[in-house]
Amino acid sequence: MREETVDIGALQLECGTLLPAVEQRVTIYGDARADRVVLIAHALTGSSRVQDWWPGVVGEGKFFDPARWCVVGINVLGGCYGSTGPANPGAGAPEPFPRISVRDMVRAQQRALAQLGIERLAVVIGGSLGGMQALRWALDFPLQVDRAVVIGAHDHHSAMGVALNALQREALALDPQRGLRLARKIAILTYKSEELFNERHERRPDRHGLDRYDVEGYLEHQADLFERRMDARTYALLTHAMDGFDVREAAAPKHAELLFVGISSDWLFRPREVRAAAQRFASLGAASRYAELHSDHGHDAFLAESDALAAILGALD
Amino acid sequence: MREETVDIGALQLECGTLLPAVEQRVTIYGDARADRVVLIAHALTGSSRVQDWWPGVVGEGKFFDPARWCVVGINVLGGCYGSTGPANPGAGAPEPFPRISVRDMVRAQQRALAQLGIERLAVVIGGSLGGMQALRWALDFPLQVDRAVVIGAHDHHSAMGVALNALQREALALDPQRGLRLARKIAILTYKSEELFNERHERRPDRHGLDRYDVEGYLEHQADLFERRMDARTYALLTHAMDGFDVREAAAPKHAELLFVGISSDWLFRPREVRAAAQRFASLGAASRYAELHSDHGHDAFLAESDALAAILGALD
Repeated sequence: MREETVDIGALQLECGTLLPAVEQRVTIYGDARADRVVLIAHALTGSSRVQDWWPGVVGEGKFFDPARWCVVGINVLGGCYGSTGPANPGAGAPEPFPRISVRDMVRAQQRALAQLGIERLAVVIGGSLGGMQALRWALDFPLQVDRAVVIGAHDHHSAMGVALNALQREALALDPQRGLRLARKIAILTYKSEELFNERHERRPDRHGLDRYDVEGYLEHQADLFERRMDARTYALLTHAMDGFDVREAAAPKHAELLFVGISSDWLFRPREVRAAAQRFASLGAASRYAELHSDHGHDAFLAESDALAAILGALD
Repeated sequence: MREETVDIGALQLECGTLLPAVEQRVTIYGDARADRVVLIAHALTGSSRVQDWWPGVVGEGKFFDPARWCVVGINVLGGCYGSTGPANPGAGAPEPFPRISVRDMVRAQQRALAQLGIERLAVVIGGSLGGMQALRWALDFPLQVDRAVVIGAHDHHSAMGVALNALQREALALDPQRGLRLARKIAILTYKSEELFNERHERRPDRHGLDRYDVEGYLEHQADLFERRMDARTYALLTHAMDGFDVREAAAPKHAELLFVGISSDWLFRPREVRAAAQRFASLGAASRYAELHSDHGHDAFLAESDALAAILGALD
């Protein structure tokens, strides 16, 4: 594994603002000269260290084994894990940090990869916000992408998704630290499912004897982990980027194949909407397929159900 | 319509605390001496004025027409619309106001009705927290209830429901006023559905030209309405009462018939769980039936879809 921070220079953002100095934090597992490069796009709170947050998918003996693939992760533009963003704005950046879009993220990634000599991606893959990036890659750079795998995401962020993000930002505005905790808890509910909570927590009392239910203790624990690693401004910025995502008017990508993976119990990105997006692109003439990951985990199944996901990805080979 | 505040004296709560002086705010539409009395139990933020919040169901020409029924509404114990609760604790009440349960609410109602000379209910009906009360009535006073109609509720509050309420209380704790607004917005998302939001708001920009989506403006408007009429301590107390609801160990009620009504698009109280509750009581020997209200409105369909609901209730006659 090697990491570097790639200076891609100035970037004109979709909102019209110029970011004068943009860095992209890149992590590479395996040989960068390998035939098969996979770019793994991370979700709202991930990082370029894709093996850290997707250990069931990346690593020795896993689907993306660095012995067979060159696996690349890049912290998104706007992120707080080494790339330019509100937590690391760089010299001359406007204050406050300007709104960025999924398209901006992908353009920054494309330039960073070009500087590293990577011009072609066998696969670009991601879940949630990562899936939005994978789709945007196929639409904006279709000749550089062989296959885009869009998991737990589709062709727009829904009104319900927009509303949920808005409430999370409202929590942040109430109190930067305690609000970040509350925002994470709201988000976690959208990443899980009723079935999973019934199985894991049911109505059991708190395991430490506190005056609360077990599920409340679980959410506190998740908030503890989160506030140590996330920055409120970054979180607000990246949720805005999700909100803005809508490619329903896009033409079919030339060359790039699309695989949409819906998750049966996902209520943030409903499987029927994922299927509809796959069908919409197919109807436009794209090589666009749909597969369903059957899981009770909810949206997070793309992280939790590595084996089932690998079985679906196996059809790629 | 006539209203009165009924003093039911001291009430021993399920938590063990004695409330020394309890009042119940009662609103009666129609003739209290009528054969057929229906008690309409309100949900989390309702009041005894049931025609105000359920105008499609109560009133001239509606299913519960005061010319044919004596329609009774009672503000729940713990509520802020005239009954004893944190906003109106009464002399000698412990501070802070003690936790109350759905059973406590129903016991207070039963005593208030007894003082008004009402010993028998042809129907007790409610949605959400009101449905929990209707079921509790049938279980605790089965010989006084002919039929209990439980809409958009079932036999326990789920781990997901508990978690959602906990996050709303956490918002209140961050800031009493702005937190109450955020809590209401979280709640509204659980009362609506993705389908409804897609239809009503889609990804349209704010109708007043503000830098937000239409759905965000809708939520602000709902919060404006709410903060004028709700009290944060009341809201926290009543959500705790919901969280505590679990009658899965209850025996079948003698005499009282049960009708459970699930809402097809309800994700707070899933229709399959409502059906399961109806079947559980039936398997214990109760006269327990299930009907489904087909609607895209989500949980709030019990308020929004009066005609479809009346069609289901029509089977009662």
